[in-house]
Amino acid sequence: MEQQAHFLTIATADLDAARRFYVDGLGWEPLMDVPGEIIFFQIASGLVLGFFLAEKFNADIADGSDRAAVSGLTLSHNVGDRDQVLSTVQAMVAAGGTILKTPRESEFGGIFNGHVADPNGVVWEIAHNPGWRIDPDGKVVL
Amino acid sequence: MEQQAHFLTIATADLDAARRFYVDGLGWEPLMDVPGEIIFFQIASGLVLGFFLAEKFNADIADGSDRAAVSGLTLSHNVGDRDQVLSTVQAMVAAGGTILKTPRESEFGGIFNGHVADPNGVVWEIAHNPGWRIDPDGKVVL
Repeated sequence: MEQQAHFLTIATADLDAARRFYVDGLGWEPLMDVPGEIIFFQIASGLVLGFFLAEKFNADIADGSDRAAVSGLTLSHNVGDRDQVLSTVQAMVAAGGTILKTPRESEFGGIFNGHVADPNGVVWEIAHNPGWRIDPDGKVVL
Repeated sequence: MEQQAHFLTIATADLDAARRFYVDGLGWEPLMDVPGEIIFFQIASGLVLGFFLAEKFNADIADGSDRAAVSGLTLSHNVGDRDQVLSTVQAMVAAGGTILKTPRESEFGGIFNGHVADPNGVVWEIAHNPGWRIDPDGKVVL
């Protein structure tokens, strides 16, 4: 199996709240928006994040269990310095996010990060990590 | 806030099981492997998937709640035809995965997909979607 993900799909209780947060609040542009079903955003080269209405998320897996509570996942957004960590967290709060951890020096050497939940409980880490970079060919260096 | 994710971090109860599944079973190459803490795999241009030991995942968010149960998330891997959906699902089962949904025509026109859980319960969709492509510049077209 090729080492590649193409979609990251998150069960979403309130699609309208997701749209208000990402589109109206953060200025993101949907790749596709199907009201009452799914909103797609491209969040990396070749990779799409989908917020999928919870009951349809369960219906698609179709194993009879309720898998729609979002837990155990963090999406990270890296920025260029510590001030941008603070300003990005502020922008997310202004858009309707909730701070889980105010930005601080993390246990991992040199990383400064904070955590914010979107209106559906999806957790974002906003981080400055001077030991991380993306090379021009897309390869990540840690 | 820029429309970009750089890391996708998943709380992981059993890192050794994750290593056996992805490295030994599927042949993936870790970007970094810190036993007892985290295993990173690059899964798209500029994007890293991290399996992070559950208690450290909770400690990093540090809001006092237990957020380590993985739920509400599907990672999708697209392949070129229906036979490759079947063979990839077989390869995941051989590596220690569990089928949640045998591959079939989905409700969404033209998509043929199946769902497999990794040993920690992380759900992968394996799909053939003839309406999806990635342009040479990395832009996804649906």
